[in-house]
Order: sequence, then structure tokens, then C-alpha cells
Amino acid sequence: MPIAFADRLANVETSAIRELFKLLGKPGIISFAGGFPDSAMFDVEGIREASERVLREEPGAALQYGATEGYQPLREQLSAFMAAKGALDVAPEGLIVTTGSQQALDLLGKTLISPGDKVIVEGPTFLATIQCFRLYGAQLISAPIDGQGVQTDRLEQLIVEHHPKFVYLIPTFGNPSGATLSLERRRKVLELAVKYQTVVVEDDPYGDLYFGEAPPPSLLALSREVPGSREWLVHCGSLSKVLSPGLRVGWMIAPAALLAKATMCKQFSDAHTSTFAQATAARYLQAGRMPATLARVRQVYAERAQAMGDALRQGLGDAIGFVQPQGGLFVWARLTDAGGKVADGNVLAQRAIDKGVAFVPGAPFFCAEPDHATLRLSFATADVDKIREGVARLAQAVQA
Amino acid sequence: MPIAFADRLANVETSAIRELFKLLGKPGIISFAGGFPDSAMFDVEGIREASERVLREEPGAALQYGATEGYQPLREQLSAFMAAKGALDVAPEGLIVTTGSQQALDLLGKTLISPGDKVIVEGPTFLATIQCFRLYGAQLISAPIDGQGVQTDRLEQLIVEHHPKFVYLIPTFGNPSGATLSLERRRKVLELAVKYQTVVVEDDPYGDLYFGEAPPPSLLALSREVPGSREWLVHCGSLSKVLSPGLRVGWMIAPAALLAKATMCKQFSDAHTSTFAQATAARYLQAGRMPATLARVRQVYAERAQAMGDALRQGLGDAIGFVQPQGGLFVWARLTDAGGKVADGNVLAQRAIDKGVAFVPGAPFFCAEPDHATLRLSFATADVDKIREGVARLAQAVQA
Repeated sequence: MPIAFADRLANVETSAIRELFKLLGKPGIISFAGGFPDSAMFDVEGIREASERVLREEPGAALQYGATEGYQPLREQLSAFMAAKGALDVAPEGLIVTTGSQQALDLLGKTLISPGDKVIVEGPTFLATIQCFRLYGAQLISAPIDGQGVQTDRLEQLIVEHHPKFVYLIPTFGNPSGATLSLERRRKVLELAVKYQTVVVEDDPYGDLYFGEAPPPSLLALSREVPGSREWLVHCGSLSKVLSPGLRVGWMIAPAALLAKATMCKQFSDAHTSTFAQATAARYLQAGRMPATLARVRQVYAERAQAMGDALRQGLGDAIGFVQPQGGLFVWARLTDAGGKVADGNVLAQRAIDKGVAFVPGAPFFCAEPDHATLRLSFATADVDKIREGVARLAQAVQA
Repeated sequence: MPIAFADRLANVETSAIRELFKLLGKPGIISFAGGFPDSAMFDVEGIREASERVLREEPGAALQYGATEGYQPLREQLSAFMAAKGALDVAPEGLIVTTGSQQALDLLGKTLISPGDKVIVEGPTFLATIQCFRLYGAQLISAPIDGQGVQTDRLEQLIVEHHPKFVYLIPTFGNPSGATLSLERRRKVLELAVKYQTVVVEDDPYGDLYFGEAPPPSLLALSREVPGSREWLVHCGSLSKVLSPGLRVGWMIAPAALLAKATMCKQFSDAHTSTFAQATAARYLQAGRMPATLARVRQVYAERAQAMGDALRQGLGDAIGFVQPQGGLFVWARLTDAGGKVADGNVLAQRAIDKGVAFVPGAPFFCAEPDHATLRLSFATADVDKIREGVARLAQAVQA
């Protein structure tokens, strides 16, 4: 008799993407498959200085158990960081530190989802969100998006129809869609939260990675203009895409009652996030290096995004359609079937591996009714020359 | 209408201990209440050297996303660490790194417990274990212990009666009991696991903290002598009590199928444990500083345990009964009611605060049928003088 696992595991399959990632070790592969920042751009010197100061000036606190809510100096720095981004009223006590923003999703699942509860997510959305919420027994409802983010009319219909426990959105430079919710729709989302007394979760790991003009204000910043909306709003932030994923420092801002329940759940999940990592992040932010780091990261990703867009238009022409990204890490594209070329993202992914380039097919990012013609290409980790070479290989693979 | 939380939150109350801890800020309080090591004994210099080497020699990997299973150099070091403790056959792939051993408990809950499933724990056991498993809907069954750890005859009866999903034990210097399972009972537990095909979880954060002779081999090390037992055995380890809680580095050793499921659950819980913290821990272990660190920690805690035991015997006499601890962080004591003195741990805790000393009453550590006469005293964080002064205050408080 084998070990009997919990029923909830039956809700989640091993991801098709994981199988694909095993192929990435093939020599010479150019990868557009990842969802991570370029490690060559980490501010190692700044992080080294920060961690040194921590171990010199506050070793006892930084290496000891800490409050589940987070290391107080980091909560203060994150409060200031959010204020600089237009969310002016987030007190240090108004946020908790999480072990990456992935843990914020897990805590939301634990705190809010009973088996059978409905949760509305974008179609497509972040794959680990889908799996995370399904592990808590959520029934996911897919809200369609376009180039302006989630379609709010459709979202309202789905809220009315399904009475979801909450709505989960990545409003800015979404993963995988790259789409950014328009200002008008942001207001509408906040109004829907109030009108239907529905929790809205704004996951915002990419909002700082804009290439030209800043995107519209976050739902959090905008909530001041929509009375009552803050009572239904959760905002998840992360240092992973802008500073370092390896620190595993994220945070969650939420109404006090929800924050208290999430803190209790976190206590029994991992007690607290690494105080050493938290203290290092706090010192880093305090040292004032973040603006320069962000400026550098934005510039490099902007160049790569441009190079990928240009190469795709030139090399694949009308075989592919996409909106040129204005921020984030991803090009979200759709195979058009023009000229009888490959039109299935999964088929193309297999062929592409043979040609020496990897990406992630789009279908797994949909919790329902997958669009098999879609694909996600990350421009974050390959330099401009590699991007051109990789897209050239992709152009070969797309020939039917 | 307020936010509606998940049903599972109804299974868990805010801990009475948390309320107590709020009182610890009172000036001049001597605290025996904590469950943490003394931060004055952290090997800050060793950790500083380790983190510096990490950022000099492997910054890209240490600051990037990593495998959910753990940072490979750390898995290798932990494999060697376990081998040095007698568990000779734990390959690096046979363990996953967790965000403290608290996360191992959470992953066991997520992986194994369906609502209504039964889990046997010691009475008393670690409070956060009780809460963690209850959040997954477990019905906890209390197995009685004595000075030799869990009573295996009673444990067998409970397994037969309840068909538990698993049995959770802290066999060595248990929290809060301080008790250590005898070698004979260890064999018996492993035999029960095989006989009844029941998963047994060995939580072992304190096993390295012995004062005189080493304790009996861990269930893990002993499993080689009990054929088939390894197929049902989970072992949770942690660097928190011996090196630094703030790193949040723990690990879980389990049969391959369970480890795979736990890895999947961890992927959606926090993606992975801080690579920066993992790489630092790996370098620390690799540098060979752990044996000296352990020797120093053992010596200091041994002195403090002795001082507390002596002071308790001298100051409280027959008002209190306890077994002198041979390791770990705690004295687990029982008020005897002798001479009509205070016999309720909760009452004594309140009076003790008034006298300027804090400890944790024992009742909350029982998942059922609490023994209200019990209390847990940590000798880890106060020095010998403070311990004597604190016990003197306790002796005043115990006067009815």
C-alpha cells in the first residue's frame, strides 16, 4: 500500500511547462522560456554592502527569530517605497512581509478559499497562481483580457454570475499577457469591488519595469479616489523582479482583518521570512540605491524588448501577432496561421527546441478554454544578439 | 458585510501564548518563555565569512530563482551533515530544503491531510504543529508521554483505533516536554510504522543540543535496522536552534513519492527558500565551523540547564516536579500542589509576570485533555545569574 495523499492534490497536475524546462539544459539552447530577471544585472555590490552592514550593526536581530509580520525596519522601508510609487497611506503596520509574492498568493488561498469557492482570474494568468489556488480547492473562472487588460464589462457579468470569493488580477505588464489595464478600467475594477463587496487582489511584481512613460497608477494608489474600495483591495509586491528573486522578499497590503488572518496562517506556514534576507533588503532600500538600479534595469529590458519585437516582426511577419510590450519581461504572441505555417504553440515549442530556441506555449496559462495559438517569450535574460539569433531560429521553426 | 474567510480558519484559535508574549515587553522581566536560542551565541563571524564568499564567488546563482527542491550545494552539505549524525544513506536528492522546519510541517499538512483525517501527536507537543495541522482540517489525537517519550503501547492502541494519516513525534529533547524517546521505544515506533503502514514524522530540531552523552540514534539513523521502515519515515531537520533561526533553513527527508508531492506544494507556497540564505548556510557548513559551534552551544546550554534545575530544586522544592533535561532548550515541569501552593500553570504565569518573570503554561501544548499543572521553562536565553534571579522570583510567585 503506498502513502495516501490528501484529496486536494488531485486538483493539480504536474505542469507541462516543467517537462519543457527539463529540455533547457540542451547545449546551445537560447531560452526565452524563463520568467526571471537577468542575474547579470543584479546589484551585487549594493547587496553585499547591505548584508555586511546588517551583520556588523544588527547581527543579533537579523539572525534571530522575528515577528511573523516582518522585520520592522523592512516594513518601514517598504512603506516608503510604496509611498514613492503613489500609495501614500500604507503604514508599516499596513503590510506584512512574505517569502516572495508567491507566498502572498498561498496565504490568500489559505485565508480565503474554502473548497468549491470560486475565484476569477484573467485568461491567461500566472501559472503558479492557478495551481496555488486550485490546491485550496478553488474553482477558477476565466475573465477575458485584451490589450487593455481585463475586460471589465465581462468581469462584472462574471462577478454577478459567480459571486467569487475574490478577483485576482495582474493589472500592470501582466504575466504572461504583458497587457496593462487602462486607467478607466482600473477605476471600474475598484468600483466593482465596492459595488459587489468583492475582494480584488492586485498582484504587481512588474509595475516598476516600465520602458517609457510610467503606467497608470496601481489599483492601490488609485483606491484613494474610489471611496470604500480600499476595504476590498489586496496588493502584492515583490523585490524579485527588480532587485533579486533569491532574497525571497515580497509583501502584502490588505485590510486589517485580512492581514491579521494572513499573519496567523503565515505563522504556521514558515514562522516568518528570513530575517537575514529581510534586514539585507531593508538596508539596501535605506541606502537609496533602488532608483539607480531600477533605471538601469528598465533601460536594458527596454532595449531587449525592442530588439525582440523588431526581430519578430522582421523574421516571422504575419505568422505572428503581438502588442509591443511597454514594460515587464514578456512578449505575449499569437500564431496567426497565415500561409499555413505552424499555428499551435505547443507544436511550435517542440520544433523550436529542435532548432535551438525555447519558449513557453500559452495554453497552460489559461484556467479554462486555452488559446492554443498563444506563446510567451521572455526577453529578459538573453542579450540583444542572442535575442536576434533566437528569433531567427524561431522563424525557421515556424515554417510548416 | 465583512470579508468572508475560509472555513478552515474556524479550526484555529488565537493562541493564549501570543497574549502572554505581549506582556514580555514589561521592563525588567526575566523571560523563560521563549522557544529560541540565545542570539549572543550566534557565530556571526562565520556567517559573515560565508555570506561574503557567496556574494564574491556565486552571486548570480545565490541571488537568482532556484530549484524548489533546494540549492544543490546546500543539499550536498546537508546530506553530509546527516551522514555525520549517523544517517548514512541520505543522498542530496533524498531531501528538500524548507523555509525553516515549520514549512516542512506545513508541507506535510498540505500533502497528507484531508479535512477530517486523524493525526496522532504527543501530548504535549509543539504548539505550532497543532495549529498548522488543524488548519488543514486534521483531527488530532493525543498520545501520552512519560520521561522516556511517547508510550509506545498506548501509541499502538491509538493507531489501531484511529488509523491516523500519520504520527508526529519530537523524539529527542521534545518541545515542550524535554523528553527523549528511549532506544527500545524508537525501534518499536519504526516497527509500528511498518506493521500498520503508517507514516511517522520525526521532527528533530533539538537532537544536536545534548549536554552529556549523545542521545539514541534518530529514527532516521535507526531505520536501517528495521526493514521497510524507511518507506514510512519522514525526518525534519533545522539549522534554527544550532546556527541561526533568521536564515530560515530547514529540510525534510522523506520517501521519494512524498518528497515529490511536497516539492510540488512548496513550488506554489513560496517557490523556494531564499537562495541567499541557502548558499550562506552551505558555505558555512562547508567551512567546517559547525562542530565548534555545536560544542560551544552545548556547553553554554548545559550550564544554564544545570543552573535552572538546581535553582528550581532549591527554590521551589516539592512544589514542582521535573526531569533534569539532558539536552534541548526546555525544562518541562509540573506543579505538585504540595503545601497548598499554586498548582495551575496559567494562574502561576499571571502571578509570575507580576513578580517579574515569564514562562509559558503547559496546557496549550496539549491537543486534548490538557494538564493544567504543567509549565515550560526555557533556560536558553538568560545567563546563569538571570536564571537564578528568575527562579527566585518564580519561588515567590508560587507561594499561594
